Amino acid sequence: MTNQAAGAARAYLRIATEEAFAPPELISMWRDMIDHGTCDDPGFVSMVGFYTAARTERTRFVFERLQDLGDLRLADMDAAGIDRQIISLTAPGTQILDTADAVTMARLANDQLAEACRAHPDRFSGLTAIAPQDPGSAAAEIERGRRELGFHGVIINAHTHGEYLDDPKFWPIFEAAEALDTPIYLHPSTPSRNMIGPLLEAGLDGAIYGFAVDTGMHVLRIITAGVFDRFPSLRLVVGHLGEALPFWLYRLDYMHAATVRARRYATMKPIQRKPSEYLRENVWITSSGVAWAPAIMFCREVLGPDRVLYAMDYPYQYVPDEVTAHENLPLTVEEKADLFQRNAQRVFCL
Amino acid sequence: MTNQAAGAARAYLRIATEEAFAPPELISMWRDMIDHGTCDDPGFVSMVGFYTAARTERTRFVFERLQDLGDLRLADMDAAGIDRQIISLTAPGTQILDTADAVTMARLANDQLAEACRAHPDRFSGLTAIAPQDPGSAAAEIERGRRELGFHGVIINAHTHGEYLDDPKFWPIFEAAEALDTPIYLHPSTPSRNMIGPLLEAGLDGAIYGFAVDTGMHVLRIITAGVFDRFPSLRLVVGHLGEALPFWLYRLDYMHAATVRARRYATMKPIQRKPSEYLRENVWITSSGVAWAPAIMFCREVLGPDRVLYAMDYPYQYVPDEVTAHENLPLTVEEKADLFQRNAQRVFCL
Repeated sequence: MTNQAAGAARAYLRIATEEAFAPPELISMWRDMIDHGTCDDPGFVSMVGFYTAARTERTRFVFERLQDLGDLRLADMDAAGIDRQIISLTAPGTQILDTADAVTMARLANDQLAEACRAHPDRFSGLTAIAPQDPGSAAAEIERGRRELGFHGVIINAHTHGEYLDDPKFWPIFEAAEALDTPIYLHPSTPSRNMIGPLLEAGLDGAIYGFAVDTGMHVLRIITAGVFDRFPSLRLVVGHLGEALPFWLYRLDYMHAATVRARRYATMKPIQRKPSEYLRENVWITSSGVAWAPAIMFCREVLGPDRVLYAMDYPYQYVPDEVTAHENLPLTVEEKADLFQRNAQRVFCL
Repeated sequence: MTNQAAGAARAYLRIATEEAFAPPELISMWRDMIDHGTCDDPGFVSMVGFYTAARTERTRFVFERLQDLGDLRLADMDAAGIDRQIISLTAPGTQILDTADAVTMARLANDQLAEACRAHPDRFSGLTAIAPQDPGSAAAEIERGRRELGFHGVIINAHTHGEYLDDPKFWPIFEAAEALDTPIYLHPSTPSRNMIGPLLEAGLDGAIYGFAVDTGMHVLRIITAGVFDRFPSLRLVVGHLGEALPFWLYRLDYMHAATVRARRYATMKPIQRKPSEYLRENVWITSSGVAWAPAIMFCREVLGPDRVLYAMDYPYQYVPDEVTAHENLPLTVEEKADLFQRNAQRVFCL
């Protein structure tokens, strides 16, 4: 099967759900922070420092495509056979900035993305960028994104200055997302300052391992803090096949129950359901970066076939052969229609 | 099927491969360190502080059994249908002590365990405890354990004062294990000081998640540093179904190649094989703590049926029903003989 773009030639559309962009103004701000040493977050310095300093074919490829919301992106989509991208602000987004810049930059990113979605309504959908640094403003931006800009969810790029969303000060964000019936995509970034040490010294802080560690923990913090008890209709989308949490369902349930029973931590109180139940009922996962049949099939088995969505991770992992790998999964046409199209339509209300 | 102990009633023995003990002298030393505040490792203070302070039924159960190498342990094994335990010093073992105490305590632990193995040669096998703080002495103790005490491998409980085994200063340990054809079991403990922060504040530093994060990273550090290129016959055993690394085989290979190609880190140089190849060829995994068919079957599929061993994690997870869960796996008798008996006999040269 070739990766032709026209969904009409298939029984389903291919919707890629974790696809990145960045406004030139944000890239420029990041560059300034690196050049002037005004940000001391070790993960930011490592990751963005590398991407802005290294002038390799690879970094040029990524930077050029991150900033494109037109012909270049559409040509890549056509070549890989992607009918629609759900586009979101790339990590670390606004979350490394001070509050005022973050609020400004989130609005700017949303305005640019909304314009591109209006220009290509049959190819692009968008998620709302926010500045979690100002939860009230973030909630208002979620509403603007949903009601005025036509976006289909919210993007949050990991921790914000080392703080995680289980902190109740961030809960106006969850409240707005639930009230507007719009999901939150929790995307990785480099681990926070108090976790990155031994990962960074070994070169393991990035997508090879550190991203999953930080984001997996983040999801567990959200679950164990009772966020889904408070916001039972909230939908969370997590990439990279759920950052391996599906592999841990049994152990999470066993150890969570044991830890709560032992009253060992003030931060781990009883919650209404098992961790695995929140992971099956409030969380959806995408296959970004993991075009590998055994893991995809495992996740479909343990979470349910309606829980796993296709993603490419454009432009970071622009590998058209991985589309073919998804097409070659041992699934019926109907099951592939769920994976590539319908699950995304349901979760993001496309 | 009941969990009767007599292997004769089955076609295979049940050998449990990650079973813990602790000398009373070590427990006492840990208590003193907690009581006098002479150890400031946050993971040790959290975990051992909890176990020594909480006088619950659960902590009494664990402490009593950790220190027993006789009737109590044998009765539990009989009740759960375990024919043989491979016993090792529990985490954090000696690795939280100063060097002199660690060397002394490793020898003491080995002498106690060897005596128990001599008393019950048909029920107990042992692994050699070491003090990685003194790699030369550790290598000598590995030789004593193998040649004089009749042990079948080496136990290392995670990092040592925040240092990991990819540091070449520890490589005499690998050299001795390879030369003596004896495997190293890399067991988790709480993450090191520079990684534990946001895990600890959320109560996620222990077996629920932090153990896997630290140990998974540790294995990756060993692989990416080229340890298996230098010691190609070295065998590593990892619990908890490989700390989720089997789930990541595809992404590890993809991202390792990309990272090496980018020359982003001085610590991540080219190695001879893909990470997944080391994980399939130099690493064996046990099912400690994860008595869950989907994950066990997944690991057998992606690593190979000869790579997955049974373990209980006694006394921490003494759950006889989990033996039944293993018996109920969709495997033939021959395949269960590999899981419960033969793979362990091969890896540990029993």
